[in-house]
Order: sequence, then structure tokens, then C-alpha cells
Amino acid sequence: MADDRGGAGGPEAVLAIDIGGTKFAAGLVGAEGEIIAAERVATPPGGEAETLWKTLTELIDSVLAREPATRVTGVGVGCGGPMTWPEGAVSPLNMPGWRAFPLRARLAGRFPGLPVRVHNDAICLAAAEHWRGAGQGSADMLGMVVSTGVGGGLILGGRLIDGGTGNAGHIGHVVVDPGGPACRCGGRGCVEAIARGPGLAAWALDQGWVPGATGARAEGLYEEAAPASGRQLSADAAAGDPIALSALARAGRALGIGIASATHLCDLDIVTIGGGLSQAGPPLFEPLEEALRAHARMDFARRVRVVPARLGQDAGLIGAAALIIHPTRYWTASA
Amino acid sequence: MADDRGGAGGPEAVLAIDIGGTKFAAGLVGAEGEIIAAERVATPPGGEAETLWKTLTELIDSVLAREPATRVTGVGVGCGGPMTWPEGAVSPLNMPGWRAFPLRARLAGRFPGLPVRVHNDAICLAAAEHWRGAGQGSADMLGMVVSTGVGGGLILGGRLIDGGTGNAGHIGHVVVDPGGPACRCGGRGCVEAIARGPGLAAWALDQGWVPGATGARAEGLYEEAAPASGRQLSADAAAGDPIALSALARAGRALGIGIASATHLCDLDIVTIGGGLSQAGPPLFEPLEEALRAHARMDFARRVRVVPARLGQDAGLIGAAALIIHPTRYWTASA
Repeated sequence: MADDRGGAGGPEAVLAIDIGGTKFAAGLVGAEGEIIAAERVATPPGGEAETLWKTLTELIDSVLAREPATRVTGVGVGCGGPMTWPEGAVSPLNMPGWRAFPLRARLAGRFPGLPVRVHNDAICLAAAEHWRGAGQGSADMLGMVVSTGVGGGLILGGRLIDGGTGNAGHIGHVVVDPGGPACRCGGRGCVEAIARGPGLAAWALDQGWVPGATGARAEGLYEEAAPASGRQLSADAAAGDPIALSALARAGRALGIGIASATHLCDLDIVTIGGGLSQAGPPLFEPLEEALRAHARMDFARRVRVVPARLGQDAGLIGAAALIIHPTRYWTASA
Repeated sequence: MADDRGGAGGPEAVLAIDIGGTKFAAGLVGAEGEIIAAERVATPPGGEAETLWKTLTELIDSVLAREPATRVTGVGVGCGGPMTWPEGAVSPLNMPGWRAFPLRARLAGRFPGLPVRVHNDAICLAAAEHWRGAGQGSADMLGMVVSTGVGGGLILGGRLIDGGTGNAGHIGHVVVDPGGPACRCGGRGCVEAIARGPGLAAWALDQGWVPGATGARAEGLYEEAAPASGRQLSADAAAGDPIALSALARAGRALGIGIASATHLCDLDIVTIGGGLSQAGPPLFEPLEEALRAHARMDFARRVRVVPARLGQDAGLIGAAALIIHPTRYWTASA
């Protein structure tokens, strides 16, 4: 049991947990955001509630066993939404086994006496980039993730903004084309409806995109069919595929308009963009900048900078730890 | 001089000032937001910097003379933007005589030893509605003004959000139709470009609107030409003019989409709408609600309510006073 661990004199760390549809990660994170130990496992596909929970607790035990002298001072968790917040009953879109699963309560039972805080995974990524990544020193930041969805978290006045239900930062559902494509949310023309990887890939296929063909042609390799993914779209754009380039330009414009709106509404300094599609580089970021500068025209909005996220795969753990290590900045809930 | 006034035992009040392109207002406001005394004067048209300042100081002296026993504890000011913030050097769009006029510094010289705080007028209106008006009890609110421009202020987590330059809350420049009409800001398709009174009136004239014709016809009065104003548009819509109704529906849709975006980004409870055009009633609010509900589709966003502002013409003074009376909520700047 974690509460039996470590002496009063042992080193201290936060147990950080990052729960996603493809992997679970757990780590011990130090006071400056350094990863002391971390492990990952694949999310059990189709796992039922207790299977998922067992996978998580085994992962936690394994990580804790690597640093037996370390005293855990709290548990921070980033998890895919939706969830009730700050109660932390989670229903991650990509994990049907957990529906209103009392993740925070179960972890609190496992670590009695310690603070256990659960927040949206995109919000943890924003907190991480603000604390230790590309947003350091900014008082007013939007941290974005562009991947199979488009998510985000807001830091305003130097503090994480939760919103009334813990859902502030949903830049993916800012409307950029009211008559545009239908969105998973039930709306139309949201940033996410246009810029999420799968939506973008579907659009490109409609336009005649053959995934991998451009790169394969260059290398003389025709045989293997490439997946119609956002990642492949980025690779094909880098290889010069005109449809892939058009698709990324389309995503970039949607992101740029959405960021212009967010900047006008929230008076932002900086926007960080992470996630798979953000790896696409200039084919995404140049049209993004062009649309942003065309629409963010108020004097105060011209200072906003859009930069790639910096922390990579550890960001989720660092942001989860931030909920515990810097609560005055990243945990305003009373719970 | 104000600092010679009142005994230690006298009643206390805040001197609140509301500076706009058409009028200056000054008042003494008590701890619960009650107006103890207030006066208004027309803004001197085309006034130079010192003429405007003299008008303001005479107005202040006149109000203070009405309550000689009252001790002033601070000076709160709402003023048309843009301004440097929190320094309070103001350049109101509609008052060319003040360009980088050091309003805060001049008032600080007039009231030595007292806190003097200047903020954007739309932000003061939002603070007022949150403190004493339609937004009371909400933690997460957008307070809007729809008039010759479209402005706003954000309260998130129970505190006024300033943004890095004091410009948070610019809902008027959230983009709702990227290919839409040019906006005064230099962008295109902003909420304000569509929904501001003069823009809406111009659109209606283009469609063949004859201001006042519908109402006049009903009353048998043809002679007097009515102004092509947002107010007239509201009146004509109320009288059943189909073009006026279309114009208000157009504004309502733009507002509804912009509010949907703001709700998704900021996880809002409530949006209050004041200003001249907000008087139009159902012809504005019904299309607004329809567009809002079509686009605010995330579960958490469905709770948002849009309501008319409640405070009327005193709102500016009440909000200016809030900067002094409740600084932990409404004045986060260190100055």
C-alpha cells in the first residue's frame, strides 16, 4: 500500500496518471516536473470496468515498486472526457468500459489521506505546457491538442480556467464555418469537424487522395496500402501530395480562425499546439498563420504567437502532477 | 479638494465615473452598489483634451458637493476603449480629443492617496451585471453590450478576466462568418460586423428598408423621415416590417453562433445582453436562441442561458464602483 511507503525523510514525488484510449501511463513526478520513473501499458481493448481498473492498479504498483523510498504526496490524473468534475467520475469516449466510473473515489480509497485530483486530459496537457513547456511565463495561454479530436485548456491571469463544469478550453467546438461539415457534437462547422485527423483524412479521400502514393512513388514502393490517417496525411503533404497539402491547409485555416476568435475573446499571449497533426509543420502552420493574421486584427490580438507544444509524450504526466504540485495555479476546485 | 472632505465618522462611498462618446456620468456609490447621488452631462462634441477634462472635473465637483459629509474611499472609472491597461491612458474611439490621455494619472493627482482604477466600459457593464444584475450568483458569465458596437466582459471562476492587456471579453470580434462582411477591426465576419446597430441598419437599407414606414403607415403618419438607426430597426420590427425582422434575425443568428463558441471555450452559465439593440425583444432573441441551440451542442454547454441585462443606465456607474468595492473579484491588476 502506498501509504505504508517511505520514511519521513524519503524523497517526495507526485503519482501522476495519464489515461487514454490507446495507453495508460503512470509516473512519479518531482517538484520541478521531472519524471523520476514512468511506465506505460496499452489500454485493454474492450475492457470492462474492473479489467481497466486492474490494469491501472498493476501499472501503479509497478511504478511505485521502482522507487520504494519515495513518499507519494498526492495523485494527479489526466483522463479523456467527458467526466463529472471535480468529482472525477469518468466516461472516456474511447473506453466504453468506463461509464461514470468513480475514478477519483477509487484512487482516493487506494491512497487514503492524500489529495487525488482528476481533470480532462487536454487540460492537463495545457497545464504541462504552461508549467514546463512552450507556454512558460505566459499569463494568458490556450494549450491545444490536434489529433483524433481537437481539445484544449485555458490559462488566464496565470491560472487554469476550469469553467463551471471543468470543461473550459473546448476550442475544438468553436464554430468557424456555420454552414460547414457536421460535427460529432451535433453542431456544424466546429474547428474539430474540419481539423481533426480522421475528418481531414475522410475529406482528402473524397478528393481522390491515395494514402502513401506520393511518398511511395518517390521511393518506388507501390505495394503496401498506407492507412488513411492524419499521420499519413502529414507524411504525404511533406512528400508534396497536392491533395494532402490542400487538406492540411484546410485544417490550418480552421485552426487559425478559431484561434483568432479565442484570442479576441480571451486576450491571449500564446497558443501551443500539440498532438499528432501538429507534427505536420509548415503545410499546417503557414495557412494557420495566414488565417489567424487575417482575422485577429484588433491591436491587442496581434501579439499572439502560435507555437508547437514542447513536451512530447511526458506532457500528460507532467500536467497531471501540476494539479497537485501547483494547486493555486492549476486546481481551483475546492475538492 | 476631495481629500479634505468628510470626517472619519462620515458615510463612505466610491466615486464612480462612466465616460462615453455621448455622455459623462459621475456618481457616489455605496457598499451594496446603491447610487447615493449621480449626475450626467453631454460629452462636449469635438472637445479638446483639456475641455473634456474640465467638463469631467466640474461634473465630479458637482456630484461631490451634493453629499459633502460623504468620505470618498476610491475612484472607479469605466471608459470607452482602447486604453492602456491598467495604466489607464485612454484613447476612446468616439472622443478624438483624448488620445493616450492619462486619465488615471490625472484622477490620481486629483484624489491623492486613493485607489483610482480605470477599465473598459463594456467590462464595467459585465462586472455590474455580475455584482448586482442579471448575472448574480453565476461563476462563469459573459456580459455583452449590443449597440453601435458589440462588446463584453468575462467573469470566470467568479472573477473578472482581464486578459494580458485588459481586453478580454471582446465577443464582438469572435468570427461567425469568415467570408462575411468586412469589420471595423480589419477582419471579416466578426459578430460586430453583422450585429452592430449601424451595420444592421445599413444592411436593411440595402434590402429596401424605409425607416419608420411600417409604424408610420399604421399611424397614418408619413411626413417625418425616421433615422436609419438600430433603435428604429427594433421599432419597425415590432411593427411587423419584414425587412427589419430579417435584419434582427440576422443579428440574432450571429450573436447565437458567437455565444455558442464562447460557451464551448469558456464553459459559461449565463450570458447577459444589454445595449440599445437588446431592447428589440423576441425578433432578436428568438433567432439568437435557435442558432445558439443548434451550435452549443456539447452536453456541458446546454445549460447556458441568455438573458437581458437588468441594470439600465446606472450599470456603468455600478460596474466602475465594483472595481473599488470588490477588488478580489473585479480588479486583479496589481496597480
